[in-house]
Order: sequence, then structure tokens, then C-alpha cells
Amino acid sequence: MTTTATTLKGQPLDRTTLDAMLRRRMFYTPSFEIYGGVSGLYDYGPPGCALQQGVLDVWRKHFILEEDMLEVDCTVLTPHDVLKTSGHVDKFADSMCKDPKNGEIFRADHFIEEILENRLKGDKEARGEKAVVKEEDPKKKRKTKAAAVAVRLDDAVVQEYEEVLAKIDNYNTQELGELIQKYDLKNPATGLQPLPPVDFNLMFATSIGPSSNLPGYLRPETAQGQFLNFSKLLEFNQQQMPFASASIGRSYRNEISPRSGLLRVREFLMAEIEHFVDPQGGKKHPRFNEVKDVELVLLNRETQLSGKTHVQKVTIGQAVADGTVDNETLGYFLARIHLFLKKIGVDQTKIRFRQHMANEMAHYAADCWDAELLTSYGWIECVGCADRSAYDLSVHAKKTGASLIVRERLPEPIKVTEWEIDIDRKKFGPYYKKDGRAVELALFDTTQSQREQLAKDLAETGSINIAAPLVYYGRATIPGDLIKIEQRTRTENVREFVPNVIEPSFGIGRILYALMEHSYWTRASDGGDESRGVLSFPPTVAPTKVIIVPLSNNDAFRPFCYEISQKLRKIGVSNRIDDSSATIGKRYSRNDELGTPLGITIDFQTIQDKTITLRDRDSTKQVRATEDQILAAIRSVVDGTKTWQDIESELPAFLGQETEVAIR
Amino acid sequence: MTTTATTLKGQPLDRTTLDAMLRRRMFYTPSFEIYGGVSGLYDYGPPGCALQQGVLDVWRKHFILEEDMLEVDCTVLTPHDVLKTSGHVDKFADSMCKDPKNGEIFRADHFIEEILENRLKGDKEARGEKAVVKEEDPKKKRKTKAAAVAVRLDDAVVQEYEEVLAKIDNYNTQELGELIQKYDLKNPATGLQPLPPVDFNLMFATSIGPSSNLPGYLRPETAQGQFLNFSKLLEFNQQQMPFASASIGRSYRNEISPRSGLLRVREFLMAEIEHFVDPQGGKKHPRFNEVKDVELVLLNRETQLSGKTHVQKVTIGQAVADGTVDNETLGYFLARIHLFLKKIGVDQTKIRFRQHMANEMAHYAADCWDAELLTSYGWIECVGCADRSAYDLSVHAKKTGASLIVRERLPEPIKVTEWEIDIDRKKFGPYYKKDGRAVELALFDTTQSQREQLAKDLAETGSINIAAPLVYYGRATIPGDLIKIEQRTRTENVREFVPNVIEPSFGIGRILYALMEHSYWTRASDGGDESRGVLSFPPTVAPTKVIIVPLSNNDAFRPFCYEISQKLRKIGVSNRIDDSSATIGKRYSRNDELGTPLGITIDFQTIQDKTITLRDRDSTKQVRATEDQILAAIRSVVDGTKTWQDIESELPAFLGQETEVAIR
Repeated sequence: MTTTATTLKGQPLDRTTLDAMLRRRMFYTPSFEIYGGVSGLYDYGPPGCALQQGVLDVWRKHFILEEDMLEVDCTVLTPHDVLKTSGHVDKFADSMCKDPKNGEIFRADHFIEEILENRLKGDKEARGEKAVVKEEDPKKKRKTKAAAVAVRLDDAVVQEYEEVLAKIDNYNTQELGELIQKYDLKNPATGLQPLPPVDFNLMFATSIGPSSNLPGYLRPETAQGQFLNFSKLLEFNQQQMPFASASIGRSYRNEISPRSGLLRVREFLMAEIEHFVDPQGGKKHPRFNEVKDVELVLLNRETQLSGKTHVQKVTIGQAVADGTVDNETLGYFLARIHLFLKKIGVDQTKIRFRQHMANEMAHYAADCWDAELLTSYGWIECVGCADRSAYDLSVHAKKTGASLIVRERLPEPIKVTEWEIDIDRKKFGPYYKKDGRAVELALFDTTQSQREQLAKDLAETGSINIAAPLVYYGRATIPGDLIKIEQRTRTENVREFVPNVIEPSFGIGRILYALMEHSYWTRASDGGDESRGVLSFPPTVAPTKVIIVPLSNNDAFRPFCYEISQKLRKIGVSNRIDDSSATIGKRYSRNDELGTPLGITIDFQTIQDKTITLRDRDSTKQVRATEDQILAAIRSVVDGTKTWQDIESELPAFLGQETEVAIR
Repeated sequence: MTTTATTLKGQPLDRTTLDAMLRRRMFYTPSFEIYGGVSGLYDYGPPGCALQQGVLDVWRKHFILEEDMLEVDCTVLTPHDVLKTSGHVDKFADSMCKDPKNGEIFRADHFIEEILENRLKGDKEARGEKAVVKEEDPKKKRKTKAAAVAVRLDDAVVQEYEEVLAKIDNYNTQELGELIQKYDLKNPATGLQPLPPVDFNLMFATSIGPSSNLPGYLRPETAQGQFLNFSKLLEFNQQQMPFASASIGRSYRNEISPRSGLLRVREFLMAEIEHFVDPQGGKKHPRFNEVKDVELVLLNRETQLSGKTHVQKVTIGQAVADGTVDNETLGYFLARIHLFLKKIGVDQTKIRFRQHMANEMAHYAADCWDAELLTSYGWIECVGCADRSAYDLSVHAKKTGASLIVRERLPEPIKVTEWEIDIDRKKFGPYYKKDGRAVELALFDTTQSQREQLAKDLAETGSINIAAPLVYYGRATIPGDLIKIEQRTRTENVREFVPNVIEPSFGIGRILYALMEHSYWTRASDGGDESRGVLSFPPTVAPTKVIIVPLSNNDAFRPFCYEISQKLRKIGVSNRIDDSSATIGKRYSRNDELGTPLGITIDFQTIQDKTITLRDRDSTKQVRATEDQILAAIRSVVDGTKTWQDIESELPAFLGQETEVAIR
């Protein structure tokens, strides 16, 4: 699919210009720039911080307060054992390969993709076809800087390359190495094949404490801290299910070679929700009804499998009813995510929810839908909404012996018939000596159907043989006099279960970047100056709500500015005074670039009759009224009860020349 | 000085009880507890998070918004070079020693302190004196667990020990080793002297990127990111001075052996301000007048040097006027810090500002005052207010060549007479070859008075000899034909200077802990139950403002609860419904422990006449009125315009039996 990024007003978006503006206005800046910078690390400046704060405020209200979630704030430092259990030590890795000559390092899948795409491009040129400009994918790093050479390929080869590219996320490290060899893929910079790829774990390692005996990592997600606190949270929630915990905090990924600006960084802010739900009864959600009519744009797994990208716009109620979205809880959160993105000002035409393919899901996920936002880098995953099933709670419970379960009193006692194993401990211990514990664990790890078979074996042969991974040779034979295996029926009053987890996980930095692209346009769209950029953030999240601009730096204006500033602050409206010596037009332009929705001008008439003017960033139109009227208007625009159109219809227009001349 | 911690109502504070309550209510919890925990790492649970959020909200309004500070959000990951320049790689270390047998690790100064104090205690016992219970110092870790043995010491030895203890912060690693040898200090657990102490850097090390070629650390403070962005921030502030940047974020210290709960942790939240000020003109502050009458409790350097701890309560205006506090800017921030602590509910009788002794200041500080809060661990440093002079900007500028200066147009041009050095580059380069750059740097690094002397030397001897640290042998002789040194007068229109930095630095976790101790009391103070704890947080920072309690879990109450909850949320008041099956008394008790200031009861009368009751946490008194009246009352208490006393005098009292019976 070819996509071209557009501004808020639909014109082509020039990312270079926008990026220069965002840096000039210090929305963000590369970290440690005077030391040469470090790729993948960025700082936010004042407007970036304020925008982030505004988005987090909305997030906190929309999710934590509105849904009574239990917020936790856990440490970033995480001991090795926790992340070993969660699977991150073994599986949270990318394949990396190195050029044998210049030492350049590539992510193996990106390296292969890039070279094969180049060959296909060369083939198209050789065939005289125009190469289709593919939507840029931020996952790819244009590192090899290879130019396509017009070489025609066999049709069979073209098809083979295309199949490889379609499955690129599917290969493991060894297979990627085989592809590099098979197609003789070379680094254009040196003309050499890179060394065989190796796994590179993406976690930052460190050592906790003075004696280096406690290896640890910077967490790759905030989720683990929430899982480890599950029992305490359930207790805090007075044992009531379902409930959700939430956490806002930094996470870390030691990307192999980060590019794509703010979209692929090594240190980033996440906001994650872990909603704990009973796996029985279809994962219903008590408030699903409130969102069932919310319309979402969905791109499901089947559509993608058929090689297409067409989307359907359906209500979430329908999507859950027809099984496109697996259950109410997952559906509820997709709708809530959509409403959140809408609230902060994300362009409604640039959101879609894409279901993960089976092979691209994280190791812990059972199902996953991403909220993707369309930017000049293509469709970007900004919010993941995964069903982690009972994976994490189960593995931590198993590893630590902690009871990470819910105990629910049954309305009626039930009878349970199960195969049970008794051990004759007096004989068992002495028989196995040091292997006793390992054999016992293996024995109790058997499923009901295995036990049924074992009971049969025992009756028939007088002994059983089981898999026992921790014992030498991996198997153990148990004589019949050490154990008993019987089917018994017992009465239970309490049901125990491990909750499943639905996890909406927000990449705040990515959302902020998409929001900046979606809010950007230039005055050229209104027939004005192309070089005048505007960021039309909604007042809720705008870094500063009001800029106060005296006509000049005449001392007479100072007390008026200060007084209005204080009054606005008292009603909770953030504002700044700009009394620099630039023209009013320039000062307003600066604040258009900062996304300040409203501007107040103090002029000589203010001194005479105390009236002030209020300017709208988006239309540059102004009204003039008394201070009280203007303050009331500001308050209602900022808290969202009125729009600028309402204000314009209520208060007299002001045709101030000074600002318009400068802008047009 | 002996101090005993007290509750809000003045009774002795039992830390064990309070701590158990804070954990039970999940204000905080040890991180990774099901994995055995990691010392120095803690998580905040829901009420801890909400309290932290409340305190940060006040902080942001009080400092960033009220003073138009420029907030930045920088990365925690910091490359080695930055922290090498700042001095942290070399100087941010503690001395550590190890037991040769059991491998136990001690902080050397704490080890010495503890053993010597024990000997002095034994001496006192042998003399038949009662040992004075010293105020606990959270810096010390009772790790050796040595019991004092009653052994009488020589008077001279006693004096020597006391002198060592008084100067314990003064010794370097080698000297600490000598003390251990001299006094034969042994680990009671093994009876052995520990190995000679070594420096242990307190920063967590990691490696950035895949090739391990970029060593880095987790930042020990947020300040460096602010300094590195100085030029961009000055530009953002349209070149206006003075201005302040601010940052809220995590920092890390790999403590050798952290104890003292939340007071000494390895990962913590800081809020730091860097106020950049012109060093000329006495570091005046434009808003000093607004705070000059604020009274502070000061403990200055001279008093401490004389071995005393008596404090003086003075206005900051007077303290600056008489030189106790060096300048207006430092004084301004001390007052603002005090007002902030007051606003969030810190006990006014438990704050003092202590000036650092010369030997205890960080390597970058020129002067420093700590806001200390009295807790059961003694007086705890919670906010540092340091004058870092031009240290950081200077070293980073020198290292990177970046221009971290302010250029200010002079009102009148001035004539500057200075010794200047000219180099004859044609000769200089070939003469020194590879040392040329090093000799040149050393030459231009000379001061005006050195240059005057060098000019004299040059005239007299025909050559000069200067220190040149980067050259072999450390000195260089420069023949007279390579250089010229002359006194010249030039006209300047612009003044350049490196700003000084005043840095108020808040340890948010420590403030939260002190606030919890200061807010704590039990109903026993009012003649009630000793086991019923209360946390009397001010409504501004209380985790939840209102608890809504239906009389029972009768379904008829549900819609009322939900409706009131939604109405409160709409006016921005955080609230929770507690419809668990516990008695009303128990539910209120739970919320007293959570610090919830107001409670609403929904009972059968509510269903009839729509009136509801409002309960005050501190007095447990109640009023009853219509929903609208109660909502208005809540709003005014939460935004601070009214107190409970106002509400009580305006609305009719309600003598509900159900809650009082349970509480008393």
C-alpha cells in the first residue's frame, strides 16, 4: 500500500520542515548533543514536556480514575531471575550480524530485507517498470545505503524473494544466516558478506549492589512489576474481580541500530494496563454496553493473510458479536483506546486497529491488536492490546511458589473427580536420594490424561516410566511400591483460578510524535505563508493554553499582563507572557508553532477601557471584550464546554491589523 | 541531641506499627518480594502512587507554573564521557571494605563509626553511666550487630574516639583503612579485620548499543541533562536571564548496603531545579520581596562548628541581610521550599534548614543548605539547595568546546585592558609538531597575572617556561620568536559570562515518607482505639478525596453511589465507592488509614429524601444535607477555600450511630 503523509489540512507533509520546527521550538532535542549525541536517546524540551504532561493527565483521568484502576509505580531495575522466568532473558532478542572488515553492525532481518528489496527494485528498472515507492517502514534502518542496480532477475527468483520478504518476521537467527549465504547478500560498503548472525538480547544489563553478585536489567516493559504484585493488588481490591492495575513509567530496549527519530528509541515512557479477568464465561466486561456503538477501523488477521490491507469500519459491538474481536474485554479496551486517542487530538482518519499475525506476537501473547497511527513513516504501532492469557502469573507462581491465584467461593459446592497421586515418602526419599525432589516435581507435573495412562501402566507392569527433565538421562522409572495413582471424587466449596490478562500498552513517545504530525499544517493552506507552521493541538493537551502579548514592551502594559496571567493561573489555565521586542505578528507565529490555542493582546485601548482581545490560533480571528468576558471565554474553551465558533458568535469581532499583516 | 519521634498529636510514634500499616494499605511494598526482594528497591501501591502524584502536582504548580520554569525531560542513560567530565566517575564513590572470611561488605565509615560507638557505649557501662540513646542516623547500617561489652577505656582513648567520630565524614579511603588498622577494628561476626577499604563508585554501569563500545551509567542526578541543554534553553527563553530549568525524574545510586526503608534506596524520584543567575551583582532575585517575611528555622555552619545544634527562627529577609544566607537567590529558594513543604502538609515544627559543613559538600557545590525533616530516623535531608557556582557549565564547555555562556549587550561600551598572547603559527606548529595543540592550550589557559609575569620573563630571558600538563614532563619552554605577549586595550559592546547555578533538589521519596510520619496518629489520642491509625493528609495531596459508603450492599443504594461518584468525578474530585460487606465502621477505619479526608454515607433516608451525610476523617463528625449542598461543601474543602469547621458551622450535624460505635 502506498501512502503519503499529509498535514492536518490534507497537503503533503514535509517531514524535514516539521522536524526542524520541532527541534527549533525544543519539543525535543537529541540527548547529549554537545557530546556528539547517542542514537536512540532524546530529551524533551519545555513544550514537549508540557504536551507529554497533558497527554498523561488525560490518560490518567480516562483510564485510572474513570475505571478505578490500581496504579502502581515499580522499579526499573529488575533482577535477572524475574526476567529469566518471564522469558525475556531467552527470547527478547534480535538477530544481529557484523561486517568482518569495517565492523558495521546490522539487524539481520533488516539487512536481508533491504538488499532483497534493492534487487527487486533493480529488476523492475531493468524491466522498464516504474518502481512503486513503498511506504517507509520505521522498523527498517536504511543503513546499507545501497543503490539499486538495474539487473533483471528470473521470474522464479523474483517470486522467491517476494516470499522471503513476506515471511521475514518468521525466520530464526540460524535461518537468517542461511538466507544471507544462499542469496550471497553483501554489505555494499565493503563488498563482503557479514559474519553469521547471532542473537543480541535487547535488555540493558547492569549489576545491583557492590559485590556484582546480583545481575539485573533495566525493565523492557512495566508489566512484570504489576504481575509480581498481583496478590497484594487483589487484596487491596478486597478480593473483587475483575480489576485492572496500571503503571506509567520508563522502559528500555537496547536497539541494535535505532533510526526513525522519536519512533525507535532506547529509553521510552510507557503507560500500561493489566486487566485481570476470569478466563471462564467468555471474558465479559461489565461496562461493554457503554462502548458497544463506538466505530473502529479494523484490519483483521484473515485479511492480512490473504495479502490484503483493506479495512472495515464496524462498531465494536458487531466486531465482538461476529468473532472478529475475540471477547468483550478485549473489545472494550479497543474502544476505550480509540476514545482516548480521539480525546487527545489524534486524526480520526489516521487510526486503524490491526490484528497481529500468529508469528509476529510477543512470546507471551495469545492474541494482540495494535492501534496504528498513520505518519510519514507509515502506519506505526502506538498502542498494543494483547491478551497475555495466564502466561505471566503462571510462570512466576511456578518459579517462586507464590500463590498468584484467585479463590472464589462457589455458589454451590461441586464434586470434582480427578486422578491423584500418593507418594510413600518413607520409601521414596531413600530410593531416589538427591534426585527425589526432581522426580517428585516431574510426577506431579503430569496431566490428568497422563495420570490415567500411568495408572494403567502401573497396574499392568508394576512400575511407570516418566519424563523427568532435571534427572540424569531425562527419565525416571518408579517402582509400584513407592506410589499410588487413583481416581477420586472430592467436594469443593472454593474455585481457584489463575486470571487471564488483557494488556493495553501505550508507547507515549510514539503517540506524541504521531500527534505532532497529525496536528501540523502551514498557513499556506489558508493562502498564507508556507514558512509559517501551526500545531493545532486541542486545548486539553496544548503545552500552553494562552499567550499574553503586550503591543510593545512599553512599561505601561506590564501590570496588565501580570494581572491577567495571575488570574488565569488561579483558574488553572497555564499561560506565558511574551514581552520580547519582536513584532506582535512574529510573537504570534512563534506561539502558533508551539501550538498555543489562544492569545491575548494588551494594547493602549486596554489601558483606557480595560478591554482585551482574544485570538484564535487556528483561524487567527480575534474578538474584543471586557477582561471578565474574555477570561470566561478562555475557561470554557480550555475545559471543552465551548468552541471558538461559540466565542466568535458571542463576542464582538476585532479586526486588529497588527497581527494579520504580519501573518498573511 | 536526643529526639523522640512523635505522631501528629504529639504521642510517641511507633514506627513498627506505622510501617506495618503502610505496607498493609499498600502505600509501598518491597519490590520483587515473591523473589525474595532486593534491598533498596521499593514499589508504590495505589495510595502511594496517588500521594506521590498529588505532591508532584503541587510541586509543578508551585515551582514550574508559578515561576515559568522551563521543564525538560532527559534520559536516564548517560554516556561515560558526560559523567567523567562532571566528576562523578572519579568522585561519586563510597569506601567499602570486605570481610576476608565470610565476604560481608561494609561501608567503611559506617563500620568504623559503629564499632567505636560500641566501645564508647561499653566504656560508659563500665563506668556505671547510663548510655545516652543517640538519635538514630539513617546513614548508618546496623550491620555488624555487635553488642557493647562493658570495657572501661582510658580517658585519652575516649577523647580520641570521639574526635574520630566527629570527623568521620572527613577521612578518605586510605585514612579509613588506617583507622581500622590503628584501632584494630574487627567484624564481630568473624573476629577478623576487614580487608583494606577500596573506592566503590555508586553509579550503575551499563553498555549502550550492541557492540559494547559505549559505556554508560544510569544518571545519579537529573542535573546533567539540564546543564547540557543550557544553550538551547537560553535560546528558548529568548536569551533572557535569569531563568530556571526543572526536571522530574528517576535517579540511581548503587548503595553499598541500603537499609532505613524508603529513606535510602537505589532508585528514586527527584525533582530538580537549576536556576541560572548572573554571578555579578550579588545574585539578586526579582521576587525576593514576595518572600522576605517568611520565617525559617536555620542551623548555620558556625553553630555546628561550635559543636551545637541550637537553631534560630528568623525571616529570610533578615538571614540574607545579616549574611547567614549568602544571597537573595539562595534565600528566595529556601523560602519557596519552606512554603512548598507547608502546602503539602509537612509538620511545621519538624522542618529545619541546615547549612552544610565545608567538608560534607558534594564535589560541585560552593554552598549548600538542606531542608531537613524530623522523623523517627532523626533529621533527614529531604531537599538540598546547593550553589553549584559555574562548575558544571564550565567543565562541560571546556571538554566539548560548546559555548555554554550568556552574551549580554552592555548598556555602554566598555574598555577592557588585558594581556593578550599572539602566536606565530608558521613557526609554532613546525617547532612543536604533535605537541603543538597541547602547548597552545596550556598557554591560553594562563591567567592575567601569570601573563604579566610571562611577559616580564620573555623580555628578560628571551623565552618562557610554562606548565603544560598534556606534554611529556608536564612543562614546555617556548622561545621568544614564536610568541608575543602584550597588554592591550579594546572596546567591548557585549559582556560574556558563565552563569552560576542555584540548585534546589528534592528527594520526592524521602519527602513522602516524612509526610506519612508527620500525618500519622491513632484514635487513642482522642480516647479511642490505639489500633486505629489515621493519616491526616491535607485534602490537596490525599490519595483519594472522598470515600462513598452505602449502609449495606443492598442493591437499592447502588445507583445513588454511582451517581454521586460520577458527579464528583465531573468536578475533578477523586473518589472511590466501598460497597464491601464490612461494617460501616470498618470501612471508615480502612479509609482513615488510607488518609481519605471525607466520607459520604448513603442510607435509607437517602432513598427517601435524597439527603446524604458527610464525615470528616479527623474529627469523625458528620453533617447531613442535600446532595447539592454536600457536593458544594466537598468541592470547597478539596480546593482549600473552606475547612471542616466552616462546613460544620454551615450544615446540620448528623449523629449517626453506625460509624461512631464502631470507631470508639
